[in-house]
Amino acid sequence: MRRWNGWGEETTVVELPDNGRGFLADLVGPGLTLPDATLEQVLAKVPVSRLPEHPLVVREARDRLLHARGQSLPDWLAMREGDFGVFPDGVAYPQTAEQIRELLKFAELWDCLVIPYGGGTSVAGHINPPVSDKAVLTVSLEHMNRLLELDEQSLIATFGPGANGPQVESQLRARGYTLGHFPQSWELSTLGGWVASRSSGQQSLRYGRIEQLFAGGTLETFAGSLEIPTFPASSAGPDLREVVMGSEGRFGILSSVKVRVTRIAEDERFYAVFLPSWEQALEGIRTLVQARVPLSMLRLSNAVETTTQLALAGHPGQIAWLERYLKLRGAAEGKCMLTFGVTGDRAQNAISLRAARRILKAFGGVFTGTLLGKKWAQNRFRFPYLREALWENGYVVDTLETATDWSNVDNLLNRIENSLREGLAAEGERVHVFTHLSHVYGEGSSIYTTYVFRPAASYAQTHERWRKLKHAASQTIANHRGTISHQHGVGKDHAPYLPVEKGPLGMAAIKALAGHFDPSGRLNPGTLLQD
Amino acid sequence: MRRWNGWGEETTVVELPDNGRGFLADLVGPGLTLPDATLEQVLAKVPVSRLPEHPLVVREARDRLLHARGQSLPDWLAMREGDFGVFPDGVAYPQTAEQIRELLKFAELWDCLVIPYGGGTSVAGHINPPVSDKAVLTVSLEHMNRLLELDEQSLIATFGPGANGPQVESQLRARGYTLGHFPQSWELSTLGGWVASRSSGQQSLRYGRIEQLFAGGTLETFAGSLEIPTFPASSAGPDLREVVMGSEGRFGILSSVKVRVTRIAEDERFYAVFLPSWEQALEGIRTLVQARVPLSMLRLSNAVETTTQLALAGHPGQIAWLERYLKLRGAAEGKCMLTFGVTGDRAQNAISLRAARRILKAFGGVFTGTLLGKKWAQNRFRFPYLREALWENGYVVDTLETATDWSNVDNLLNRIENSLREGLAAEGERVHVFTHLSHVYGEGSSIYTTYVFRPAASYAQTHERWRKLKHAASQTIANHRGTISHQHGVGKDHAPYLPVEKGPLGMAAIKALAGHFDPSGRLNPGTLLQD
Repeated sequence: MRRWNGWGEETTVVELPDNGRGFLADLVGPGLTLPDATLEQVLAKVPVSRLPEHPLVVREARDRLLHARGQSLPDWLAMREGDFGVFPDGVAYPQTAEQIRELLKFAELWDCLVIPYGGGTSVAGHINPPVSDKAVLTVSLEHMNRLLELDEQSLIATFGPGANGPQVESQLRARGYTLGHFPQSWELSTLGGWVASRSSGQQSLRYGRIEQLFAGGTLETFAGSLEIPTFPASSAGPDLREVVMGSEGRFGILSSVKVRVTRIAEDERFYAVFLPSWEQALEGIRTLVQARVPLSMLRLSNAVETTTQLALAGHPGQIAWLERYLKLRGAAEGKCMLTFGVTGDRAQNAISLRAARRILKAFGGVFTGTLLGKKWAQNRFRFPYLREALWENGYVVDTLETATDWSNVDNLLNRIENSLREGLAAEGERVHVFTHLSHVYGEGSSIYTTYVFRPAASYAQTHERWRKLKHAASQTIANHRGTISHQHGVGKDHAPYLPVEKGPLGMAAIKALAGHFDPSGRLNPGTLLQD
Repeated sequence: MRRWNGWGEETTVVELPDNGRGFLADLVGPGLTLPDATLEQVLAKVPVSRLPEHPLVVREARDRLLHARGQSLPDWLAMREGDFGVFPDGVAYPQTAEQIRELLKFAELWDCLVIPYGGGTSVAGHINPPVSDKAVLTVSLEHMNRLLELDEQSLIATFGPGANGPQVESQLRARGYTLGHFPQSWELSTLGGWVASRSSGQQSLRYGRIEQLFAGGTLETFAGSLEIPTFPASSAGPDLREVVMGSEGRFGILSSVKVRVTRIAEDERFYAVFLPSWEQALEGIRTLVQARVPLSMLRLSNAVETTTQLALAGHPGQIAWLERYLKLRGAAEGKCMLTFGVTGDRAQNAISLRAARRILKAFGGVFTGTLLGKKWAQNRFRFPYLREALWENGYVVDTLETATDWSNVDNLLNRIENSLREGLAAEGERVHVFTHLSHVYGEGSSIYTTYVFRPAASYAQTHERWRKLKHAASQTIANHRGTISHQHGVGKDHAPYLPVEKGPLGMAAIKALAGHFDPSGRLNPGTLLQD
């Protein structure tokens, strides 16, 4: 069963290795735990629903509790404390587009708010019901999860919007295809959610972001159904796909999603290379991507992340051996780990690997083969489970991310890390901060920063610590040419910072669209746009 | 000097080869010429300007005449007949964003319409002034054509919006870079025009369409300036670049354009392969692109285009030799010519070539080396000049294009060709029709059809012939899953067919945006949206 107050399946448990506690205690001090609420305590708090009866609407406390929160750190703290705040008044599980339209009519009739719900994996407050006089109906798409059509000539698959990562891939793989979209939330997040929040997967270098994969579909809105036909490309005016992508449930609910798929590749491998310094690593990765070497993923950890990963890898003997080898080859203190993948036919992969090795060697790269790459592939979706392990050991972990042009990557990365590292200095608390670049483009790169700190004496104070850190980093991003999100979306947590990048006229344009599709402002208020 | 009543530089003359006249006479009958008007005759028709004086506004007849028409077939007929219809009341040539904003204020003050003007190369009526009680001001960006900034780390170049193809490439090449955007109109069309109309270049397979190249910039609108910052990627809500692209001058005037550039490749070659039949050719090209072989261009002519090209190539001796060789190797009657390019470093190009040859061989492809590929590269921008040569020999030529998913390419192509081939049957006129696929994607392909017919006894009747053909083909595209344009844009000629693909809700969304940026509807009325 899925955890009601944390990430993923209850049966999946990721442990902190033996040395992890000591490693973290050295960095930020000994861990500190806060008491967890029980499910029963929280269920008892769910108020009476304000929604009338409807055959599609479930008003049970349990359903409402399970759809009240996402996976942001504030959500986590709220779930652990048992202080959920607002619960939706009901949850509907439509099975057809017709039923979605019926639910919109119901919402209009009873003057209530509607929150589209995919996998509930938002880390930015996308699906949290707002405080409102109006009743809130959450519409979960989880029953609309099937592969409905596959055009094998055009490589277009039509899915229900609620298909999650494993459902998408298993249905495609049975026919010999893959979508190739693997965000870290892949086990739980859904196709509709990826589209609505402009998601990016770990192998975007080969398959593209959801922007390149989303080919068309249907959006059910309060103003009617928007059907977006599939074309390989078009110059016929503004692209309506781009209006749907990033709309974060403000314009409508997707009832079907058409995506571009790929035949499963003959061969796929992941490799690890260690670069002697961050400067060399950064130049190396930029050279690699700008040379258009056809790789399928690139992930570069900075020195602190590299050290942290090796320390927490859980095989101190093997790691010590690796470190000795790397030192011998010139990658010692300050070394940075780069993981890259090749996916395709064997001949192309061989030449891509050769090109990548040649380029990285020029920057002092020490090639270590596929062992660590395999490890990465095995554990690629396990990071979110680590929050549980850290929490139980008395630590809080969160991540944030942005993207910026290459000329600004190092500057912005340092500023973000500093803002976090110094963020709790006034309280005398240390914050452990590290970063990787995991989505690279000719123009620039994503920056993905993880920070670990200790809970305070209470949940409220812990939340306040997070707020300080998040605000400091978000301000830094907004003021120094970063986008407020490269892959997590805007939700409610990033909405205050969005106007910096969109400008007043751009914000007004998005509001004009929201007003067009949802004149009464019923859809997901507070997300994307601060109302 | 640029032709006032046709395409390109007066000094560039493309002749029909000796056998061309006979070839066409066999296909559609002997040529028929109509009398051309002189420049003086047309200048005499330019009415008194309705605009007041302003230091930035030129009201000379010559300027207004030169900005009254684009390069669609109706434009061509109007220019040749000397019946231009509506002239703009003045032309401004701003040099700065400030001056553009001043011109918008001027338009507001004097209640006039504004048409943004790039290279004047529209083939869909984008820049033609409408019949209106209001005065029309055309804003030519031709003086804003400089490379303003080059971020060599991020590979971002900032240009004035009026830089045309040669100005873009020469300024970049001097620094070792290329944009790689080569539409057939490249000699005259501009960066701002490419963005506003979602252009695609001949090497989009490597460099992407303008959608992938346009990184940001500034749009001056009646509601203020929309600044779009550059990010390599972002999930922060709807993408405002996508609102600007395809807006066709309805939302504002670009005052600066930032584009993603590439270092000039070490090596570039173009090759020709002949496939024995259309069916094999179509399968071959689809296989090639879906296998993601890193080619830089692909262009597949159908059998009639192949025959026509070889007949009009002008070297009958060499062509006869080539045909004998191809016949010997199995590509005779019904053969289709495929041109493809590789661009990159030599090692990658070698393996790409190998992969392409291997795949095409499986479909009966006969490889002929680089000779015809070189020819293609030399002549890649000369096709538009051919209209002049054909006209002087008594024939009318026009092209139209769409894109559709692979499962529909053959169906739609045949329907388009038939609609044109039979389009003048009621008048007993034959139409020579042929097609190529020149922009291919995993999902589908563009379809680019050329049609040649004879003028009628008058300009009005000739225009009516075109109207019949254009309408028949456009209806076919709209009703059979094609986009009304893959690369030419909507303009006024395609606007009636746009609602089929955007739907009523989509059209209303685009109108909502137009209303937001241009509340009084002054910008380019009639283009994109039928008002």
